[in-house]
Amino acid sequence: MSIELRKQLFEQLDQIVLVDPHSHINPLSAASTTLADILGYHYYTELSHSAGMPKDQIEEPGLDPKEKVRRLVENFGPIENTIQYSWFIEFAQKMFGFADERLTTDNWEALYDSAAERMAKDDWEETVLRESKLEGIFLTNDFDDTLEGFDTGRYIPCLRTDDLVFHLAKLTVVERLENATGISISGREALESALDKLFEHFVSKGAKACAISLPPDFAPHYVSDNRADIAIKNILGKGDDAAPNDRHAASNFVFWSLAERCRQHKLPFDLMIGVNRGVYETGVYQGQDLYDSRVSLIQYRQLFNAFRDVTFPVSVLASVTNQELVSYSWIFPNVVANGHWWYSNTPAYIESDLAARLEAIPQTKVIGYYTDMYKLEFGMPKFAMFKRILAKVLAERFVIDRGWSEDRALELGKTVLRGNVESIFGLGK
Amino acid sequence: MSIELRKQLFEQLDQIVLVDPHSHINPLSAASTTLADILGYHYYTELSHSAGMPKDQIEEPGLDPKEKVRRLVENFGPIENTIQYSWFIEFAQKMFGFADERLTTDNWEALYDSAAERMAKDDWEETVLRESKLEGIFLTNDFDDTLEGFDTGRYIPCLRTDDLVFHLAKLTVVERLENATGISISGREALESALDKLFEHFVSKGAKACAISLPPDFAPHYVSDNRADIAIKNILGKGDDAAPNDRHAASNFVFWSLAERCRQHKLPFDLMIGVNRGVYETGVYQGQDLYDSRVSLIQYRQLFNAFRDVTFPVSVLASVTNQELVSYSWIFPNVVANGHWWYSNTPAYIESDLAARLEAIPQTKVIGYYTDMYKLEFGMPKFAMFKRILAKVLAERFVIDRGWSEDRALELGKTVLRGNVESIFGLGK
Amino acid sequence: MSIELRKQLFEQLDQIVLVDPHSHINPLSAASTTLADILGYHYYTELSHSAGMPKDQIEEPGLDPKEKVRRLVENFGPIENTIQYSWFIEFAQKMFGFADERLTTDNWEALYDSAAERMAKDDWEETVLRESKLEGIFLTNDFDDTLEGFDTGRYIPCLRTDDLVFHLAKLTVVERLENATGISISGREALESALDKLFEHFVSKGAKACAISLPPDFAPHYVSDNRADIAIKNILGKGDDAAPNDRHAASNFVFWSLAERCRQHKLPFDLMIGVNRGVYETGVYQGQDLYDSRVSLIQYRQLFNAFRDVTFPVSVLASVTNQELVSYSWIFPNVVANGHWWYSNTPAYIESDLAARLEAIPQTKVIGYYTDMYKLEFGMPKFAMFKRILAKVLAERFVIDRGWSEDRALELGKTVLRGNVESIFGLGK
Repeated sequence: MSIELRKQLFEQLDQIVLVDPHSHINPLSAASTTLADILGYHYYTELSHSAGMPKDQIEEPGLDPKEKVRRLVENFGPIENTIQYSWFIEFAQKMFGFADERLTTDNWEALYDSAAERMAKDDWEETVLRESKLEGIFLTNDFDDTLEGFDTGRYIPCLRTDDLVFHLAKLTVVERLENATGISISGREALESALDKLFEHFVSKGAKACAISLPPDFAPHYVSDNRADIAIKNILGKGDDAAPNDRHAASNFVFWSLAERCRQHKLPFDLMIGVNRGVYETGVYQGQDLYDSRVSLIQYRQLFNAFRDVTFPVSVLASVTNQELVSYSWIFPNVVANGHWWYSNTPAYIESDLAARLEAIPQTKVIGYYTDMYKLEFGMPKFAMFKRILAKVLAERFVIDRGWSEDRALELGKTVLRGNVESIFGLGK
Repeated sequence: MSIELRKQLFEQLDQIVLVDPHSHINPLSAASTTLADILGYHYYTELSHSAGMPKDQIEEPGLDPKEKVRRLVENFGPIENTIQYSWFIEFAQKMFGFADERLTTDNWEALYDSAAERMAKDDWEETVLRESKLEGIFLTNDFDDTLEGFDTGRYIPCLRTDDLVFHLAKLTVVERLENATGISISGREALESALDKLFEHFVSKGAKACAISLPPDFAPHYVSDNRADIAIKNILGKGDDAAPNDRHAASNFVFWSLAERCRQHKLPFDLMIGVNRGVYETGVYQGQDLYDSRVSLIQYRQLFNAFRDVTFPVSVLASVTNQELVSYSWIFPNVVANGHWWYSNTPAYIESDLAARLEAIPQTKVIGYYTDMYKLEFGMPKFAMFKRILAKVLAERFVIDRGWSEDRALELGKTVLRGNVESIFGLGK
Repeated sequence: MSIELRKQLFEQLDQIVLVDPHSHINPLSAASTTLADILGYHYYTELSHSAGMPKDQIEEPGLDPKEKVRRLVENFGPIENTIQYSWFIEFAQKMFGFADERLTTDNWEALYDSAAERMAKDDWEETVLRESKLEGIFLTNDFDDTLEGFDTGRYIPCLRTDDLVFHLAKLTVVERLENATGISISGREALESALDKLFEHFVSKGAKACAISLPPDFAPHYVSDNRADIAIKNILGKGDDAAPNDRHAASNFVFWSLAERCRQHKLPFDLMIGVNRGVYETGVYQGQDLYDSRVSLIQYRQLFNAFRDVTFPVSVLASVTNQELVSYSWIFPNVVANGHWWYSNTPAYIESDLAARLEAIPQTKVIGYYTDMYKLEFGMPKFAMFKRILAKVLAERFVIDRGWSEDRALELGKTVLRGNVESIFGLGK
């Protein structure tokens, strides 16, 4: 009963046209041109490297795309079990008519060539979006992005703020900020004016969120203007020589200032909590970050209380924090559970994390899923993975365990998949 | 096979007459008089508030009960998915003949009126108890409760001690203690005499447990009489001005003294570990507390070793601590796993926590469930939720995975549901 | 469908002849001679003690084996639900023809006698190995083990190093080291020479791993020779009087030196992370250790980066750390997930931990299971438990959820059960 039911629910959920509330798509080059763009995704390079493939084989400067794919495929045996591998296979089967279950030294080249042919067509980007049932995709824009040259209704800007909060001591960051705003960053007040300008720019271009990723030891708190004056003056241009206490005060001041501007512009502030950068120092590109699961949302207590009128869609890296996220979303009106991030974006963790969310957080406060993708081709298989798990949870925990009708379960599924993305981020407004 | 089997097991488990080993029932007003009593439960107010309902609409002074229910029902859409919502619906269906699956602006008033009529009958309390198959319910009594005016065989006293351990610096607490015992709390020795009097009073009234909830940073340790003399003198009447190190010493001294009296009177000492009070400062009543999951039972190492002849039924707030609880209950003879508390009292967490307990803790050391309820009406649906999950775990993990007979699984179910409550708390003695 | 499928997969997996990559077998007395050897396993004594059996009844000096079994059986009722109890029953049914599901005061003696008879036969050890389908078993050898008198092809040496890292201040440890190596441990350089000798000895005897168990607060880091010179001189022979900072430096120096020798000899270094020793001070033998789940693999960041050419098979005590282990194994080429250790070695935790590993770690980097056993008789039922769970995970999460063929799922199962033990530990080389 349950397997058939899951299938039926999946098929219904799979009809919905979606908006992806978090990605790293470059809107000027959203789709791939060769399989190397797809298989160059850090999941494939880092897993292959983890399984023994030397980094310099993967990241050789000037490496031809086809040769890169050949090398990766030769090393794919060890990662065939992973869910990430299945994303590629599912996409290749659906969009390139790939008939096999594994990419091997025998079949990769034919796929490479036929894929390149299809991707070269003018309508490839449209085709991928249409077949993936995606009509809107949130971006992750650097604060100095001009946001020009693309349809901001389809590719929705989102102001990413890690550099401002954590790297203000770097000369390059200040220069980028000055160039973007035309304001000379002489101190705290100038910085605040620059932040105002950034927000005005982003909002005028249709931005629907501000976002940041945060290390596990971050615990935001209010910093007075006086303290910020000193801290900011002390760190500007100092780079790594800036004193830790000043960097700390400046980070907190900027973070708090961002939250104030989110309030003013009614922008949700996406918090992606828990990542340690560069843990594996010599890992492949984007394959160096990990985490310390000893983090708690209690660290955000002061923030959540101070900004009751700002919505915080929160993503966490580990299941242990997911239980806190369920509880904090159930209590704080401004805390929302957001997707299944990175190391928690695998079926076993999605299934248990999602089940806990759907039974204890108000249904209007769960954002089902985002892709986090760099290339459009991942929208279909990542959402498909999630929709299958959503169908499983709805079938097993709502229809079977709680006696819900299939229709009622479907309604809940639609709300978290699509409805909440619209209502929480204020789409169409 | 599994669904039918779960149903059969549930039906058998559902025959058992139970004792609820932890509640907040007021024995002088145990049952509800209107739906406002039921829907005023903090789960409904906090979830509705979390979903957007302003606090002042919920907690308006002098609000008419019917109007309160009307307002809550208007805002119930967002919380219809929650397990807490299902508790209400299940009770309304079973006890008020409610025929729908949702409480709406169309059907609430008829239910309100018919419920009020039934609740007004003299035998409502008896009816609820009988239909819920509850013959005993543990209370949570303030230390200065007279324990008069009710049947202590049905409503079993339990000495709650949070105020004594954590708020002894407050003048009001000392005054309540002096009034309750007739002893002037001049220092450590007088305090100990007062504690003796409280225990004698409670035990004479049939108390079967002492209980306390504890913040995640508490790590109880022995404090000498000399240190306690000084600490207690320093904090008495000081309130928030008491020095942290003295408060700390006094808290630990009182906690240790309570454990000593539990030993003397052979009372189990319920430890409810991990709550941070008032995290959401402006939340609704009883909807402000949360937690930091970074807590470990290793903090109780000294206590568990020092009081080997005191039984500690331990409740934890998060699944991460549940695995520790399983391990500590498996090793320490005096540590017992107790129910599924608060933020862990939702099906997904109950299911995984319970499965882990039933396969690695001696079966005599698992107390299946308590309701934590404030009103009798929640006994039936909360226990029903647990019994369904217990049936699922027994069916899937014992009958199917381990080849047990249905009868053997049922025996285990009965032990944790009822038998252990009797043996661990010494009922009938 | 799923139950039949699980059965089929189990039957296939159950055909594989295995190597157990971690045990505490004494190769000179590998099998049991009476049921007291089997039921004397700490799981039975600690669980019985936890359920109320006094320690002195279990550990009475000079206790006759048969009387010991009689006493344990009398107290077995409370632990009949545990998975550990089922290991015994399964073995007794398969190897002694035991026909019941429970060991009782009525049936134990007949079993005791018939078992003693079978165990007395010359070929008992061979029989157990053959019936258990075990052809190789890793040992846990003290650093001063002569490794003489047994077939090191069957019983594979593994250098256990806890004493060297954490107890070098003890005179007995230094004396054992001097006796084993013939080197007078006068300071850092002599110690390093002694470590060289130990590794040469172990490798010459076919050792395939170095291993250590680590407390949750250990965070290995590099210590300079100069600092080590001082620290080691300061602690030698001091025992408990050694200064904490010197002990700390010496521990880290020795640990780092072991990793260097693992690199040199191409030995994997098994890290068993998270145990606190002696938490329950008066517990039964081997039933006193517990843990603090607040540990993170980030503590091993410096180690994993410094020794990129050493393989670290990592075992963790709790599920919260398993998610980190999945992520660290997915990123670091030299980190491998190893078995299901101790308090995580129960079905509910194995199932969720394994599912997460199989979908996100390269399949070549998951060592399915080891027994941790002290007596050969546990090889069969412990591996059987694991194989059933592996079959469940493969059936539910690969065949059903991901549409894999049964054959493909089986391949993955074989890789983690057997293939990886060979490739990771370099068996047959």
